[in-house]
Amino acid sequence: MKFVAIILGSKSDYEVMKDCAMTLEKFGIAHELVIASAHRSPDRLAKYVAYAENHNVAAFIAAAGMAAHLAGAVASRTSKPVIGVPMASGALNGVDALYSTVQMPPKMPVACVAINGAINAAYLALQILAVSDPEVAKKLAEDRAEIAAQVEKDSALIEKIL
Amino acid sequence: MKFVAIILGSKSDYEVMKDCAMTLEKFGIAHELVIASAHRSPDRLAKYVAYAENHNVAAFIAAAGMAAHLAGAVASRTSKPVIGVPMASGALNGVDALYSTVQMPPKMPVACVAINGAINAAYLALQILAVSDPEVAKKLAEDRAEIAAQVEKDSALIEKIL
Amino acid sequence: MKFVAIILGSKSDYEVMKDCAMTLEKFGIAHELVIASAHRSPDRLAKYVAYAENHNVAAFIAAAGMAAHLAGAVASRTSKPVIGVPMASGALNGVDALYSTVQMPPKMPVACVAINGAINAAYLALQILAVSDPEVAKKLAEDRAEIAAQVEKDSALIEKIL
Amino acid sequence: MKFVAIILGSKSDYEVMKDCAMTLEKFGIAHELVIASAHRSPDRLAKYVAYAENHNVAAFIAAAGMAAHLAGAVASRTSKPVIGVPMASGALNGVDALYSTVQMPPKMPVACVAINGAINAAYLALQILAVSDPEVAKKLAEDRAEIAAQVEKDSALIEKIL
Amino acid sequence: MKFVAIILGSKSDYEVMKDCAMTLEKFGIAHELVIASAHRSPDRLAKYVAYAENHNVAAFIAAAGMAAHLAGAVASRTSKPVIGVPMASGALNGVDALYSTVQMPPKMPVACVAINGAINAAYLALQILAVSDPEVAKKLAEDRAEIAAQVEKDSALIEKIL
Amino acid sequence: MKFVAIILGSKSDYEVMKDCAMTLEKFGIAHELVIASAHRSPDRLAKYVAYAENHNVAAFIAAAGMAAHLAGAVASRTSKPVIGVPMASGALNGVDALYSTVQMPPKMPVACVAINGAINAAYLALQILAVSDPEVAKKLAEDRAEIAAQVEKDSALIEKIL
Amino acid sequence: MKFVAIILGSKSDYEVMKDCAMTLEKFGIAHELVIASAHRSPDRLAKYVAYAENHNVAAFIAAAGMAAHLAGAVASRTSKPVIGVPMASGALNGVDALYSTVQMPPKMPVACVAINGAINAAYLALQILAVSDPEVAKKLAEDRAEIAAQVEKDSALIEKIL
Amino acid sequence: MKFVAIILGSKSDYEVMKDCAMTLEKFGIAHELVIASAHRSPDRLAKYVAYAENHNVAAFIAAAGMAAHLAGAVASRTSKPVIGVPMASGALNGVDALYSTVQMPPKMPVACVAINGAINAAYLALQILAVSDPEVAKKLAEDRAEIAAQVEKDSALIEKIL
Repeated sequence: MKFVAIILGSKSDYEVMKDCAMTLEKFGIAHELVIASAHRSPDRLAKYVAYAENHNVAAFIAAAGMAAHLAGAVASRTSKPVIGVPMASGALNGVDALYSTVQMPPKMPVACVAINGAINAAYLALQILAVSDPEVAKKLAEDRAEIAAQVEKDSALIEKIL
Repeated sequence: MKFVAIILGSKSDYEVMKDCAMTLEKFGIAHELVIASAHRSPDRLAKYVAYAENHNVAAFIAAAGMAAHLAGAVASRTSKPVIGVPMASGALNGVDALYSTVQMPPKMPVACVAINGAINAAYLALQILAVSDPEVAKKLAEDRAEIAAQVEKDSALIEKIL
Repeated sequence: MKFVAIILGSKSDYEVMKDCAMTLEKFGIAHELVIASAHRSPDRLAKYVAYAENHNVAAFIAAAGMAAHLAGAVASRTSKPVIGVPMASGALNGVDALYSTVQMPPKMPVACVAINGAINAAYLALQILAVSDPEVAKKLAEDRAEIAAQVEKDSALIEKIL
Repeated sequence: MKFVAIILGSKSDYEVMKDCAMTLEKFGIAHELVIASAHRSPDRLAKYVAYAENHNVAAFIAAAGMAAHLAGAVASRTSKPVIGVPMASGALNGVDALYSTVQMPPKMPVACVAINGAINAAYLALQILAVSDPEVAKKLAEDRAEIAAQVEKDSALIEKIL
Repeated sequence: MKFVAIILGSKSDYEVMKDCAMTLEKFGIAHELVIASAHRSPDRLAKYVAYAENHNVAAFIAAAGMAAHLAGAVASRTSKPVIGVPMASGALNGVDALYSTVQMPPKMPVACVAINGAINAAYLALQILAVSDPEVAKKLAEDRAEIAAQVEKDSALIEKIL
Repeated sequence: MKFVAIILGSKSDYEVMKDCAMTLEKFGIAHELVIASAHRSPDRLAKYVAYAENHNVAAFIAAAGMAAHLAGAVASRTSKPVIGVPMASGALNGVDALYSTVQMPPKMPVACVAINGAINAAYLALQILAVSDPEVAKKLAEDRAEIAAQVEKDSALIEKIL
Repeated sequence: MKFVAIILGSKSDYEVMKDCAMTLEKFGIAHELVIASAHRSPDRLAKYVAYAENHNVAAFIAAAGMAAHLAGAVASRTSKPVIGVPMASGALNGVDALYSTVQMPPKMPVACVAINGAINAAYLALQILAVSDPEVAKKLAEDRAEIAAQVEKDSALIEKIL
Repeated sequence: MKFVAIILGSKSDYEVMKDCAMTLEKFGIAHELVIASAHRSPDRLAKYVAYAENHNVAAFIAAAGMAAHLAGAVASRTSKPVIGVPMASGALNGVDALYSTVQMPPKMPVACVAINGAINAAYLALQILAVSDPEVAKKLAEDRAEIAAQVEKDSALIEKIL
């Protein structure tokens, strides 16, 4: 069974990233969640990436802050899509993690989402799965309608039309 | 037939982005290439996105500079994966395009690659296709070996070992 | 009757932007206020811009944070003046929204005001109306005198002259 | 007769800003062009703003680089719309001028356009005039169609559709 | 009698800048303190600068935030030394005020100190006065010794020497 | 006996930097800790550096914020390795201290660590000592295993494997 | 005789800073010019500052790039006014030198001018001298008139008045 | 024999980094030089780090641009000192590489030098070796005298003393 692998660089990323797991849950997408640091546990990271590859992982989501090498380190060990989530931590509040995640060299992409973009990472994984899974595509289409409907509901609370 | 749609915000983006098309070409991936500006031709853009959806597009690649809304505008009209390429143009040299491309709101991701990351955008599209296309996956695996081999060749030219 | 259309990208912008509506109210300027997201509800946005055009809108005020495409998306669908208010939200605290709002391509301007500049957006709309409405011009002239007078009052509380 | 007043902070701004004057020219909009520095000639600036007010100016366009106070200085002496153009000059290449132009205090707006946005400044002035001048509005509508048509022409040169 | 003129752009600057006045007080330097905004009260500002010039002002200290034109506006109306204090306010937290204060054009200097550098502004004024006032120079020399002594006292509380 | 000299630019740096001393303590490395400001007490600083040199210092750790000259000032007076710790203080929150610490001219390096990187400074000092001290090297190797083990423990608390 | 001491951090600063010396020359102000690096020759720098103090220096001008500690190092050894000129060199093009020069701690000011602001540094020195030297003050007043006249001449070349 | 290992992330780094090798050469320090990319050849990198560890490497120097993970990747696989050189390449000109290199997490330091600081990296390696090698220490002390002498020679060419 295809699944999405969520890797956190440190336990402090969990508070934000649990929304990523919950979003996949809501859409019924199988996923794993582990902590594996590019710097503090490079072997563990390499081993997990290999394990996930062997177990039919569809895509990786990697979240890290500061010198955020995690997504790049995963990308260096797989050709599966790697979604990077720069985390806002430390004195630079995520601009360091953004640059460290997105500015990858040619032929080695990371799909970077917004700083702290836990939910967007999940949606991007869903969109990638949906390319070949019509059921996920259908759920996303329905969800898109709900998203637009929510804007109308939000507006109704404060809307003023002459 | 699945294909990748490359959209440029302006003709000035072509010089950098032709490497994106050439990379897809090299891997034998069908693709289209059009110019459609989010600001100057919003209807054309909406029409093209709808057309591509109807013709079985797998993913979009959108390249734009400055207030780079193109990728986000495409993302607002499809649930296919949208890969954004911030272009280095104007006085801020791409940091504006980077922020405009990557900082998308929840549930509306853009998969942002490096500034001027034309080749990375193509590779990310390949990786997304490879999730469900073993032939592309095989080509990427072979290519990865070549990438590593090239590093060795580059090193050989200047290497100094005691 | 001419009016000013205020569009918010999300309900979270209301807390800051209600000062914009209140300023227009204070000057007796007709205005509408809606939420319509460039990303989450592009059709709703296009529809509202068309509706406003048909109902004699004088100018738009568009407030959004992060990859703030709202003002640009409005500008792509009207030739009325579009005033953009970059909102300070997310990890980059508005510098992303500023660049996304102000760095528009040639021939497609947005009139950008300060980050969180809700009141300035209203004043700019008033100034635009005043170009052809002497009554508004007169109110602005009187208000300008009050603004200067307030500086004197503020100074009086702490002023020290030898 | 209503006119647009273009003020440059220094002669070095002319190379970029002549496109602003040419754009107004193309649309048949009366305009004046002077150099008047907020720092080097504050009295001349104040005098010119007063003169322009007395001669029925519709809007000001103020272009300056570095600590770009020009637009703000104009705004401090008129309630007409003031369009600010941050110029890319000096070591910071316009990010200083952008912040100095856009970050105005409450009740004292400047309508800031992109760094070196000479053409956008002219279009914004046109849009402001068009609020009460149907002829300008008509020209802008026609121009918008041309802008979109140009995108199609640009695309035709490189377009690739399957 | 020579004195130092402290000008604040808004009352909100007082909380930080009162330390500037207190420092001058401590050194027995005559000073005035007023609020006069470059944008909201340009005439009041021009008038005060002229008044101060006529009353033998030695130097100006001008504190303002955001698009901090105050110091530059003072400098445009006097050849006395103008010390600029960029204030940390608004979403950009003073980087805008820093650029707006320091990046002055040739021949029109502002002596910029640190963001929120109220005390440094006072010391710089003291140093300027001391160029021709041996008594102030003597006080500064004594103070310098105290500053160094304070470092030793601070160190003593936590110092660890083997 | 070789030791590490920790110098703080001001007492406010102690709260963060005590973790540096504690880390050296934990590894049983002799160290001194003093406050000596590059600006407020340059003679004291020069004297301490000379004293430390004479007492067989192995490396310096220098922590300072804002215009963080401390590490550079130490480096100008010794050829021992100088580790610089930029402190997050003031309106720029450490980006100023980072640039002031790391951007040293050719032949005059400072070994800069992360903003507020107190613990990293200690580890870098340990690594430098370990080059010639096998006992420290052994401790670091053991510690590295503990670091990796901690990642596994952290992961176990939230891990989800299919 | 009072004089101004110009100190350059490296010979590469001379190309820009010779305009500083020439400006003082033009106003007939005695000045010295030396290279003395805060990092590469701290003793030479300390010696020169002491020498200048003993020879009646009125003010220092210190120009340096990157981790620009020069002005701060001078300020640490004198209570004379120290004017800092951040130089645009290296990859960060002067933003590092600006922060390193301006962000000085309380009681230790540097009077920072614009990046590469060689001429402004000279003018600021002139203004400081003019506080107690009516002849210099008179020259500055005359020069100010010329500066304003030059703006008019510049304008005449391109001016367009209806 | 102890040696220094220089690792480049790509061949394009050689032009700048050859000065690093030449500096070590000049001081007679044994060194190796290889290209090994953290992203494109992670296994080669891991293998080389292990090889160097086994051959008595004293310290690593790692140079890379953009999302510069190289130094961090080396640091994750050794407890030897790792000196990181952020390279100025791509649209962000090294600020991305600086943040990616320096902002390492606790217990995993990289000793970061200036952007493009090839020579400083070599000097830092020399200083680290000198901690336990009196001959290198002596050479560095002699060199420091030459550095200071060079400043005097540079100054002599332009010096002006009254």
